[in-house]
Amino acid sequence: MNLGQTITMVIPIFGVIALLFTFWRSAWVSKQEVGTPKMEIIAKNISDGAMAFLKAEYKILSIFVVAVAIILGLTGNNAGSSPLVAVSFILGAICSAMAGYIGMKVATKANVRTTHAARTSLGRALEVAFAGGSVMGMGVVGLGVLGLGILLIVYSNMFGMEDQNAVRRVITILTGFSFGASSIALFARVGGGIYTKAADVGADLVGKVEAGIPEDHPLNPATIADNVGDNVGDVAGMGADLFESYVGSIIGTMVLGAAFIGVSSGFESSNDWGGLNAVLLPLILASVGIITSIIGTFFVKVKDGGDPQKALNRGEYLAFLIMVICTYFITKMVLPAEWTFAGQAVSSFGVFMAVVIGLASGLAIGLITEHYTGTGTGPVKSIVKQSLTGAATNIIAGLGVGMISTAIPTIILAAAILGAHYFAGLYGIAIAAVGMLSNTGIQLAIDAYGPVSDNAGGIAEMADLPKEVRQRTDKLDAVGNTTAAIGKGFAIGSAALTALALFAAFMTTAGITSIDIAQPKVMAGLLLGGMLPFLFSALSMNAVGRAAMDMINEVRRQFKDIPELKAALAVMRKNGETEYADWSKADQDIFDAADGKPEYSKCVEISTKASIREMILPGLIAIISPVFIGFAGGPEMLGGLLAGVTVCGVLMAIFQSNAGGAWDNAKKMFEEGVEIEGKMYYKGSDPHKATVVGDTVGDPFKDTSGPSLNILLKLMSVVALVIAAMI
Amino acid sequence: MNLGQTITMVIPIFGVIALLFTFWRSAWVSKQEVGTPKMEIIAKNISDGAMAFLKAEYKILSIFVVAVAIILGLTGNNAGSSPLVAVSFILGAICSAMAGYIGMKVATKANVRTTHAARTSLGRALEVAFAGGSVMGMGVVGLGVLGLGILLIVYSNMFGMEDQNAVRRVITILTGFSFGASSIALFARVGGGIYTKAADVGADLVGKVEAGIPEDHPLNPATIADNVGDNVGDVAGMGADLFESYVGSIIGTMVLGAAFIGVSSGFESSNDWGGLNAVLLPLILASVGIITSIIGTFFVKVKDGGDPQKALNRGEYLAFLIMVICTYFITKMVLPAEWTFAGQAVSSFGVFMAVVIGLASGLAIGLITEHYTGTGTGPVKSIVKQSLTGAATNIIAGLGVGMISTAIPTIILAAAILGAHYFAGLYGIAIAAVGMLSNTGIQLAIDAYGPVSDNAGGIAEMADLPKEVRQRTDKLDAVGNTTAAIGKGFAIGSAALTALALFAAFMTTAGITSIDIAQPKVMAGLLLGGMLPFLFSALSMNAVGRAAMDMINEVRRQFKDIPELKAALAVMRKNGETEYADWSKADQDIFDAADGKPEYSKCVEISTKASIREMILPGLIAIISPVFIGFAGGPEMLGGLLAGVTVCGVLMAIFQSNAGGAWDNAKKMFEEGVEIEGKMYYKGSDPHKATVVGDTVGDPFKDTSGPSLNILLKLMSVVALVIAAMI
Repeated sequence: MNLGQTITMVIPIFGVIALLFTFWRSAWVSKQEVGTPKMEIIAKNISDGAMAFLKAEYKILSIFVVAVAIILGLTGNNAGSSPLVAVSFILGAICSAMAGYIGMKVATKANVRTTHAARTSLGRALEVAFAGGSVMGMGVVGLGVLGLGILLIVYSNMFGMEDQNAVRRVITILTGFSFGASSIALFARVGGGIYTKAADVGADLVGKVEAGIPEDHPLNPATIADNVGDNVGDVAGMGADLFESYVGSIIGTMVLGAAFIGVSSGFESSNDWGGLNAVLLPLILASVGIITSIIGTFFVKVKDGGDPQKALNRGEYLAFLIMVICTYFITKMVLPAEWTFAGQAVSSFGVFMAVVIGLASGLAIGLITEHYTGTGTGPVKSIVKQSLTGAATNIIAGLGVGMISTAIPTIILAAAILGAHYFAGLYGIAIAAVGMLSNTGIQLAIDAYGPVSDNAGGIAEMADLPKEVRQRTDKLDAVGNTTAAIGKGFAIGSAALTALALFAAFMTTAGITSIDIAQPKVMAGLLLGGMLPFLFSALSMNAVGRAAMDMINEVRRQFKDIPELKAALAVMRKNGETEYADWSKADQDIFDAADGKPEYSKCVEISTKASIREMILPGLIAIISPVFIGFAGGPEMLGGLLAGVTVCGVLMAIFQSNAGGAWDNAKKMFEEGVEIEGKMYYKGSDPHKATVVGDTVGDPFKDTSGPSLNILLKLMSVVALVIAAMI
Repeated sequence: MNLGQTITMVIPIFGVIALLFTFWRSAWVSKQEVGTPKMEIIAKNISDGAMAFLKAEYKILSIFVVAVAIILGLTGNNAGSSPLVAVSFILGAICSAMAGYIGMKVATKANVRTTHAARTSLGRALEVAFAGGSVMGMGVVGLGVLGLGILLIVYSNMFGMEDQNAVRRVITILTGFSFGASSIALFARVGGGIYTKAADVGADLVGKVEAGIPEDHPLNPATIADNVGDNVGDVAGMGADLFESYVGSIIGTMVLGAAFIGVSSGFESSNDWGGLNAVLLPLILASVGIITSIIGTFFVKVKDGGDPQKALNRGEYLAFLIMVICTYFITKMVLPAEWTFAGQAVSSFGVFMAVVIGLASGLAIGLITEHYTGTGTGPVKSIVKQSLTGAATNIIAGLGVGMISTAIPTIILAAAILGAHYFAGLYGIAIAAVGMLSNTGIQLAIDAYGPVSDNAGGIAEMADLPKEVRQRTDKLDAVGNTTAAIGKGFAIGSAALTALALFAAFMTTAGITSIDIAQPKVMAGLLLGGMLPFLFSALSMNAVGRAAMDMINEVRRQFKDIPELKAALAVMRKNGETEYADWSKADQDIFDAADGKPEYSKCVEISTKASIREMILPGLIAIISPVFIGFAGGPEMLGGLLAGVTVCGVLMAIFQSNAGGAWDNAKKMFEEGVEIEGKMYYKGSDPHKATVVGDTVGDPFKDTSGPSLNILLKLMSVVALVIAAMI
């Protein structure tokens, strides 16, 4: 057994470690107290709703997965591949689905427990919320490494890894895993994005605007669906998105690493590693990243009065730092000191630099995103100022901020591509993606902490807890908004690099060495590919509109058909702003009688059904267009298509996510009170109302169409990679 | 003297014919009656404002042109080029500026005469308005063909055209002409776009919203600037845009045509044409297009009660048809029956097909644009419906329509590229662009007719003419909105094909045969290029915001500082909706005293200054980025940059133009009264107010940032072509 084979056997252990950590944190969360009976009921509603969504989603998904697996099984029987690609596909789908299930399960437990913890201390609440998030984070990386690791062991035993062709074959079969992950990501991210905004818009428009009841009010039948949506979109959706990037970047790099086998010194299959050095490196980095992420989580702690943001940053930066140091030694140990490939001299130090470039640019894109979307930053303040002259100028300003915010992240990405290639060639670009994603564990933990805190605030509101509880959860939530922005930037950046890694892998597998824009086929592909993100965005935004309309109709129906609800709303309207305690006894009785009457589950069902119905068309476009172009136009045209979708997809994703984030925080600034040209403005002022319009426009931008593009570009690349050998 | 040389001598004559036609129509327009003294004063104000803008613009421009010419003169002294490129540049700039001047001059004469004609008949009004437009249209093509034709004669005499190298040299020097045209287009389109929207938004926000006076009211100091803006943006801006496309596509095709010289049968320099067949073809087609356009204009006539739209369509379709027939015979006569180039068999019939593809796709993109933006079409009705739930859903629906509307035009463009290349190789793509633009004369006449009618309506309003006059001009204006939409689609489509022609010419001149996306440099260039349209759009939208703010402050100042104006506004407010005739005598006196008091010219000056100040930064980015990337990253990276800017630029231009157009017409549908779900809604209803927000957002989209992108992508391509020989 050579070193390569030994390492292959060891890798799954790191996945197991991550999962053990997950179970430990999960058990810890479960052990925390739930709080009052009312809190328990609300939490159960949310949890049931989330599970109902997952159940419905996974039902459709399983049909889809089986159908695609059959196609893959039937077509996989050609030279460089095997029908086993269908097995990889199914396992990839199952791992991603499991990660989503675990994450949602814990997040919907952690939310109410965070609320309860917030009744005593901020630090305690952070701990619970972050524990909930870290289960999602470590679940994703654990299942990713474990799944890939086990498949690699099985396939390498079946087909051997003795030469480049054998290794290539094994990895080609492995790509199915990535495709499986992408399929779930499509459902979770696109479907989840539609779900969350349909529920949100529905709850807001009928509840807040028509009936005049506050957000998160228990009398609103859509309120549970709204809270479920936060989990569906931001926990399961984000998790599936990063799982896809994580797995995609590793597999893309493995494909490129296989090209070194048999090349000059150090990559002879006769050496210690059996030539697998560069093939295994991404898995080794991911494995080590699991450990650094776990270490990082231990440093996320805050005392009362402390700043949760600093605590989260401490954990992330520490993980970053340890990862850089480890990478230095790992690259030195795993790779030969120097070799030559395709005319370029590559060194282990060069690969190290590429990984660092990936890590650093992920961080940088996140920070830039925060600059363009964070409360109180220059760009957001410019939107605040433009809100004085109404909704139109607010919208124009937000669109402007979103567009201009594409500049620096694009320059960072371009520099990362050039830098990583300078240091380590095409392999460098792919390994930079792996570097960026190596700390996914803690990165996603921080992301997923946001919706848990958001939910905790909602529960505090619905359960009528004292003000200071809501204040504490609001503090956590505010930090959550910042981390969400950073997380979104990171997700886009990693999707871009992953798509490029898959793109390079596609070219290698398809056996093409150049994709020449001067060829009309490629240029036509580029144009068509560039158009897809626009089409995809429009479809998913329209889908939100239709799904929200279903929700609105249902809420209106309940307000009309449920007599207790109708009576309670009338009583609320009558008493206006007066405190509940000052109401007449008769009014209080009527109001109390409505408690628990809204049929929350109907709303959950409607959001679920609509989201799944609406994601079919965009999903089909994402899967069918590369297949169609690949077979009708050939690999070069498909390459053009991928380049187009990657470039426009990244830009449109940044534009939409950041415009949405900036509008959201411009609104928040008015809610906290903001001074413009010497005058204070608050919630309810005309400029604030203008920002509400902007925020409503931004919602589908930042939570549906924007993030969906991450999936579009990765999914299309991975489909191309899967069919590469056949076209 | 061979046939090629003879034809070269003949071409300028067609330019002269176009200009003679221009003078004839211009004189005819001048001869028409102006109407009442009040109309005359208003018209003079608009005309003076327009000339003031042109004067200020051309002053800055001349400095810019001289500076760039010096740089070109100094750097042009390398192999394949000559310092004479500076002369071409200056002449290109002068021709474009002259076309703009002539067009504006006549448009600002035709507007008031159209109003006057509308006092008697619709048919007469159409005739005047269209005559005004056709001067712009034929001026552009006339000066384009004349300028290029004369330069070609001069340079071919200086340097000879005996072999491929000599021809290449002559054309390389000619490219300066295209660069000159692009520079003016930058100022006219970007500056003009900022001007028109700053004036519009300024006039609306203070006049309509703050002071409560109707649109186009003579008491609004910004009203003249607003009307000037229509001319600046839609006449001069559109004219310069198409002039740039027209010239750019011809020159790009000439560069590619030169590649055939000395190739197999029919392109030996010894034959009748001196090998210049394919080089001269674009000029010949353009020359014939002048005649077909002139013929078309004679068929634009309508009786009272007739449909102006049908009259315009008749002229356009007829010109289209004649052009197709002529092209068939021209290609047969000019080109050898068949030859082989770069391994592909090309035939004169193939080239004919490429031209037809260009012509047809221009028409198709225009029609599709109308489908997405026209009053009463499905997409616009969907926006109307979404306006019921407020401004936010109106905005989301409009953004969705804009995004989805990119799909079919992109597919048409991709099909045109593949088709034209299938029939005639790279040359086919370039000649398709020429084909699309061959009828620019009548196309632009129809476009420019719109703002003339728009102005005519404004003058009718300001001059207090009877209602039926305004109704007639409104009918013309409504048609003008449709033609404007079609014209915008056409401008984008032609910009895209022109950019591709220039792109191909750039590659030929730079001596690179492939631009491989798989190279990190190219991919980085693609990303950066893709980002530029987002940055450019954001900058020009922000510029509108700042310029509008200047205008708002000036209008507010006048309302405060001019006592007669202040008093008149108070009187108007007091009398509210009552008719002027029912006012007290004292009120009437106060109101009349304010007549002519607003300082219109101050507002014109502010818009002019602001627009020129604000276009500098985006302009510099457009010019410097290809130079920087070209010299720092090499021709391949520059190629990637151009491809990125072309793809994203076309998509963003379609997205923004169509979203803006659709919002505009959704608003118009409410103003005419619209039935939704069995209920009628009119102007002033809540859904109408929502559409006003959408329209305000759409204004900079469709009139500033969207059309500016046409310039961005052509300008960058032409800069690349100019520096191609040096990098």
